[in-house]
Amino acid sequence: MSGFAAVDVIRVKRDGGVLSDAQIDWVVDAYTRGVVADEQMSALAMAILLNGMTGPEIARWTAAMIASGERLDLSSVARPTVDKHSTGGVGDKITLPLTPLVAACGAAVPQLSGRGLGHTGGTLDKLESIPGWRAALSNQEFIAQLRDIGAVICAAGSGLAPADRKLYALRDVTGTVEAIPLIASSIMSKKIAEGTGALVLDVKVGSGAFMKSIDDARELARTMVELGGAHGVKTVALLTDMSTPLGRTIGNGIEVTESVEVLAGGGPADVVELTLALAREMLDAAGLTDADPAAALRDGRAMDVWRSMIRAQGGDPDAPMPTAAEVEVVRADSDGYVAAVDAYAMGVAAWRLGAGRARKEDPVSVPAGVVLHKRPGDPVRAGEPLYELRAERAELIPAALAESALAVTIEQRPPTPTSLVIERVE
Amino acid sequence: MSGFAAVDVIRVKRDGGVLSDAQIDWVVDAYTRGVVADEQMSALAMAILLNGMTGPEIARWTAAMIASGERLDLSSVARPTVDKHSTGGVGDKITLPLTPLVAACGAAVPQLSGRGLGHTGGTLDKLESIPGWRAALSNQEFIAQLRDIGAVICAAGSGLAPADRKLYALRDVTGTVEAIPLIASSIMSKKIAEGTGALVLDVKVGSGAFMKSIDDARELARTMVELGGAHGVKTVALLTDMSTPLGRTIGNGIEVTESVEVLAGGGPADVVELTLALAREMLDAAGLTDADPAAALRDGRAMDVWRSMIRAQGGDPDAPMPTAAEVEVVRADSDGYVAAVDAYAMGVAAWRLGAGRARKEDPVSVPAGVVLHKRPGDPVRAGEPLYELRAERAELIPAALAESALAVTIEQRPPTPTSLVIERVE
Repeated sequence: MSGFAAVDVIRVKRDGGVLSDAQIDWVVDAYTRGVVADEQMSALAMAILLNGMTGPEIARWTAAMIASGERLDLSSVARPTVDKHSTGGVGDKITLPLTPLVAACGAAVPQLSGRGLGHTGGTLDKLESIPGWRAALSNQEFIAQLRDIGAVICAAGSGLAPADRKLYALRDVTGTVEAIPLIASSIMSKKIAEGTGALVLDVKVGSGAFMKSIDDARELARTMVELGGAHGVKTVALLTDMSTPLGRTIGNGIEVTESVEVLAGGGPADVVELTLALAREMLDAAGLTDADPAAALRDGRAMDVWRSMIRAQGGDPDAPMPTAAEVEVVRADSDGYVAAVDAYAMGVAAWRLGAGRARKEDPVSVPAGVVLHKRPGDPVRAGEPLYELRAERAELIPAALAESALAVTIEQRPPTPTSLVIERVE
Repeated sequence: MSGFAAVDVIRVKRDGGVLSDAQIDWVVDAYTRGVVADEQMSALAMAILLNGMTGPEIARWTAAMIASGERLDLSSVARPTVDKHSTGGVGDKITLPLTPLVAACGAAVPQLSGRGLGHTGGTLDKLESIPGWRAALSNQEFIAQLRDIGAVICAAGSGLAPADRKLYALRDVTGTVEAIPLIASSIMSKKIAEGTGALVLDVKVGSGAFMKSIDDARELARTMVELGGAHGVKTVALLTDMSTPLGRTIGNGIEVTESVEVLAGGGPADVVELTLALAREMLDAAGLTDADPAAALRDGRAMDVWRSMIRAQGGDPDAPMPTAAEVEVVRADSDGYVAAVDAYAMGVAAWRLGAGRARKEDPVSVPAGVVLHKRPGDPVRAGEPLYELRAERAELIPAALAESALAVTIEQRPPTPTSLVIERVE
């Protein structure tokens, strides 16, 4: 194991072969240490994307990524730990109400989150809309807050799966993000290293998701469920629809406001439905089968945990959100029913308005984004508002108008209702 | 054409699509300028290797590589110009006698050559065995020598196809050397930029070649012949056998000595046969159909051009070659006939003895290499020498012994004779 030639490892995968355990251990470690160069790893990543990996290869690759860094020990937390991961969607603010809700029902939720890139938003970007709130916690702070409050949403420390951190940045610029073995090992290496006892995956399918087809989503879900099980983390996945944005808001500050509405017992029906479905799965996985998450939303217990969690990280849960200087309302040009609101188009529109970033180092706008006035199934009359675009600067509006122009489809008959949760994989 | 995102170009090829002319022009130019990063180009190269390129894509890619640098103008050379390129083999010293031979018959041969890497030798490394000889010429010196003597073998200037220079180095370390579209465009961009009027390709097939299968070799040959034609360079290819080393020597100084024997009218039959076959093709391609290369070898005209060519680049054609301090003779352990001498094993053995280099910056040994006492078809008695290993230092011998131990096969019946030239592609 002391040193393969990188080219020999690349050739095995290029030619459709199976990498040995020793080759995987070596290449992941050597890449983390800079012995294998970026251009060698990107060639290997492309070969993995095109030629695939076997189950045992993915398992070993994941183990090697976990071994590249530290693994947190959450045994000092008395409650059962359970985390959730979403593969990313448009308007997907579910982590915000879900984390305090599951904590209010008796579990501890160690939620290490990321930032948005491209058309999907990031949980940390959304929470940073709250004045004073800080994403970075030390391992000690993280564990202490988990013990005291039962809910933490924060940035993953640099010690967890450093191989993944480096590889993810490389995949982003080399067209190799979409490799299912690499997506699965990236997600699972971080979640396993974080030390959670159980995990619920929200695998998105549809135009606004990275997985456009149900077959790909199912393969990804199965791969991750197996990886979790192999590492002693009870893992369940829901495949959920991401052809329509979740809720009525796509942005940072406006998604926080909508999340707080859900915690107050209101909010859009689809956000409430998915939050409760995921909470149920998380509580079951944590062994808390008697908990009643719907009651915890109704009676304010989830809101109490939210306020404690935000305050513990320096945030002011009562601070008002800033409003956007520029608002453009788009209206229906005919009567009928909203048949579809395309998640991808609306995600790109919000990104163009300043809610997302083009490069990692870019800032995001707090008030920018898209607010939907109508959702699929809603009746509409010509001239009624369909959605509005919000931005800090007027010059950002035209590109977002162009991106969203075809996003809303109006038809004469109401659409057939579809199910948000498509399938369960365990 | 002012700027694609590299990731979008990579994705097209990754997903099996066809790159547009504008995408190819942009990515080759942007890579040459450093705007597209090495890790992006290596991912693209792997996608090209696995998903292929159409004929028009390869043609455009080649044109873009030519356009990355200068294109020499050989119109001041009165004679017809014709060059030869070999895809590389073991003991392949053919360029040395061939270049002065074809010049002696009335053509001008602008032979820009390379150095060896891995188990195959390089023409420049061999010629540098001659005291005083220098490989680097300015464009002016190159053209002047072509005009005056009709024969030049020298290093390609850095101004020719700089995109290829950068890409070739990248492919070497990323397992993407074997992509036929990239091999073809690499060879042809340099030959077209060098300004030759006609070109004969020696595409090697067999254990000692980069192309192990006849189908791959044929595809590479056809691709290059088409590329030459599309750029106005009359191009013909011979597929030739590289399962056995060419001649009796594999090394640097010892291959020069063998080449001079051929120019003196002697030398091994296979080297003479291939030299004459390629000379015939080159002279036909140059329109010199009446020339008689066999006569030019016999009557000393080719030797005269060799001596002028070596002297013009500072070399002493009469200087003796140094001898190796260490010689290990390997003998037959049974009676019979030599059935095979494996080219790859012998190439690796010579490389281990110091004739080749592991990294670009390594020096090569002048006297090191392998001398074959027996070739396929020769009868042999137990105890007779089969081959000898030569090195400057004794510690290099054991590894070469190990590499060559199974290279020579002895059987009870003589092998069926095979043809050196397998196929002609035009």
